Amino acid sequence: MKQRVLTGITTTGTPHLGNFVGAIRPAIAASLVAGNESFFFLADYHALIKCDDPRRIERSRLELAATWLAAGLDTERVVFYRQSDIPEIPELTWLLTCVTAKGLMNRAHAYKASTDANEAAGEEPDAGVTMGLFSYPILMAADILMFNATHVPVGRDQVQHIEMARDVGQRFNHLFGQGKELFVLPQAVVEEQVATLPGLDGRKMSKSYDNTIPLFEGGSKGLKEAIARIVTDSRLPGEAKDPDNSHLFTLYQAFASSDETAAFRTALLEGLGWGDAKQQLFELIEREIGPKRAHYAELMANPERIEAALQEGARKARALATPLLVQLREAVGLRRFQAIAAPVAASEHNKPQLPIFKQYREADGRFYFKLTAHDGRVLLQSEGFEQGRDAGQWVGKLKQRGAAALAEAPVQLGDGISQDEVAEALSLLSAE
Amino acid sequence: MKQRVLTGITTTGTPHLGNFVGAIRPAIAASLVAGNESFFFLADYHALIKCDDPRRIERSRLELAATWLAAGLDTERVVFYRQSDIPEIPELTWLLTCVTAKGLMNRAHAYKASTDANEAAGEEPDAGVTMGLFSYPILMAADILMFNATHVPVGRDQVQHIEMARDVGQRFNHLFGQGKELFVLPQAVVEEQVATLPGLDGRKMSKSYDNTIPLFEGGSKGLKEAIARIVTDSRLPGEAKDPDNSHLFTLYQAFASSDETAAFRTALLEGLGWGDAKQQLFELIEREIGPKRAHYAELMANPERIEAALQEGARKARALATPLLVQLREAVGLRRFQAIAAPVAASEHNKPQLPIFKQYREADGRFYFKLTAHDGRVLLQSEGFEQGRDAGQWVGKLKQRGAAALAEAPVQLGDGISQDEVAEALSLLSAE
Repeated sequence: MKQRVLTGITTTGTPHLGNFVGAIRPAIAASLVAGNESFFFLADYHALIKCDDPRRIERSRLELAATWLAAGLDTERVVFYRQSDIPEIPELTWLLTCVTAKGLMNRAHAYKASTDANEAAGEEPDAGVTMGLFSYPILMAADILMFNATHVPVGRDQVQHIEMARDVGQRFNHLFGQGKELFVLPQAVVEEQVATLPGLDGRKMSKSYDNTIPLFEGGSKGLKEAIARIVTDSRLPGEAKDPDNSHLFTLYQAFASSDETAAFRTALLEGLGWGDAKQQLFELIEREIGPKRAHYAELMANPERIEAALQEGARKARALATPLLVQLREAVGLRRFQAIAAPVAASEHNKPQLPIFKQYREADGRFYFKLTAHDGRVLLQSEGFEQGRDAGQWVGKLKQRGAAALAEAPVQLGDGISQDEVAEALSLLSAE
Repeated sequence: MKQRVLTGITTTGTPHLGNFVGAIRPAIAASLVAGNESFFFLADYHALIKCDDPRRIERSRLELAATWLAAGLDTERVVFYRQSDIPEIPELTWLLTCVTAKGLMNRAHAYKASTDANEAAGEEPDAGVTMGLFSYPILMAADILMFNATHVPVGRDQVQHIEMARDVGQRFNHLFGQGKELFVLPQAVVEEQVATLPGLDGRKMSKSYDNTIPLFEGGSKGLKEAIARIVTDSRLPGEAKDPDNSHLFTLYQAFASSDETAAFRTALLEGLGWGDAKQQLFELIEREIGPKRAHYAELMANPERIEAALQEGARKARALATPLLVQLREAVGLRRFQAIAAPVAASEHNKPQLPIFKQYREADGRFYFKLTAHDGRVLLQSEGFEQGRDAGQWVGKLKQRGAAALAEAPVQLGDGISQDEVAEALSLLSAE
């Protein structure tokens, strides 16, 4: 089965070089592996839990989008969108909220950490805890289940939340699926050996240690100045250095080929001065980051381009979310009004009038099909096929898999026809 | 200030005669009072909390919609919609979730009733409690705040939830309003003297006592049979009856004019037999209910008409919800990407290019205005006015009140222009 990998990006703060090496670069590399589908999204509804400063959220969303695009995220291969552009997500969140046991949320680590801290401080357990913090595993489940993601890369502390998403999805399948799997149950993928980059002082690079090297901000000048502040030992030029105990060497390694790394090791052993070593490190990082920084600056100066890329991502994401939500709404009892099973036994002419697939050949010699409603309106119109068989196969897929097959089918909606209406028509057919 | 009254209708079960007299009839009467705006909605997201039987929810939604329409709800005067047709409501629910203290929900009566019952039964306090039950006061706050309702008629047990909606709205205003009141704070209206109708046995008519008289189901025959089962004393025809101790008399009163009531009282005192009295009661109720029942049957046979009425209601409701949500998203930091305050002082040519209102006169002698985007696309086009002054006043209102004035303004959206885009353009102007 094809893997569908889903990664959320929290939109608070600005990424530094450590985030680039530890998260952004490997995630983008993974998204280029053939055969995988990748979904990356800016988790801006989640950001609202932690941050009530609109300017900070706005800036972080923009900077993060620009960073990922500049770092090489390929929007042709990856579905890249903002969570808040998908109204199906909060709606699904409510559907899931109704089937989630409160006891499950009581046990969530992030919530328990807060109540533990409050109790240690002699406060009420729920002091300062918002409903956002308490219930965010449900939003996270909606993020994942909305797109039937199969794999979710997470840190070890987030594994529990993926299990909760499985629990909630399973319960929903059980209550409403009538034997069908409405949701695919996701798997957590724990990256055990995440490269953590050392900061200026040798500890893990982190904003909380104030030891970061900026990624794009501050330009090449800023990068150079930060590198100049890397702590080294006091050996003089000409004295042999110890690469294995130098975090400058570790930083170098993170951007160099193995040949370059070997050469740098030799040079250090042979007495390369720290000043020269820093200059080489700067040039090496700049080689990789420089062009990306230029791209970043260009994007930041033209936010409408980033906006357009994300709108296109939202369109692709919603092409999957909309038909699934139609199915889910129908499963829980929220579909459009239609005649309810008559109290008398249904005779033939009482049957609901069904939409019809028609296959035909046009003057151009190609084979087509369309789906028409019982009142004659054209709901779907296919492209032309060389082979009649191909048209037939698509009809079969649409009948069998319903709205789930719509996104990839070579069809267009009829004039004034909504995706919802087509999804409902298909579900009528599959109910036959 | 104009009152905007919002009433939710829970979509579980089928209404009986007691619901008609106690809730439906008075609510519809109130909606016809001049000067008030009424919003009635089918609370079907709420129904999911209590019910995981999709067929029951589907049937109840349809029956309730048909009942209220047949009972005389005037969709020209009342905005009548299904909660689940307004995607802005679950989205607002999430925004509010992030500012709601968990402690507030811990104190909600409905939740506490469940934990008390569990504790009394020796269970875990949260046994069987879903997150839907725990967090539904937030959904209820979104229902109310979404439309800036000023008055919410509720039973005494729901007053606390209206107070919670005020709390949450106030907190949101405080955090994100920058001095503006994003939300109107609603007031609970407690109906102290709700008419409760007695059932067949004289106790309050209620499904749990199994003493109900059907409203529409079962036809006039069903009504007659139910009335035949009303419990009376054993006085014979010719013996004087005691109207003040007869719930049959109370039932009569609920459907009669005062003259009719007086005449019926006299007849009972003069020895009217119970059989005849029941026949008179049946005829009286049938006079009011019969035509409505016919209307109900016609609607139930044509669910697409009910669907169309609710779609139109959803359209009207969303015309208010959409621009408000645009404002709210902007307030929390979720607007579309745009240039972020430049680090250097903004010079004149760095200013964002603003949309422009243009007023002009056409060959037909009438005055018009339009709003164009900086790139020349027409965002809004007004109707023609006899007086140039009127066009000017509308421009002023739109500039001042922004998207809030859109719903009533005599304008049309430009081709391919969304309401969101117009709302953003107006907010740019008002930010000037």
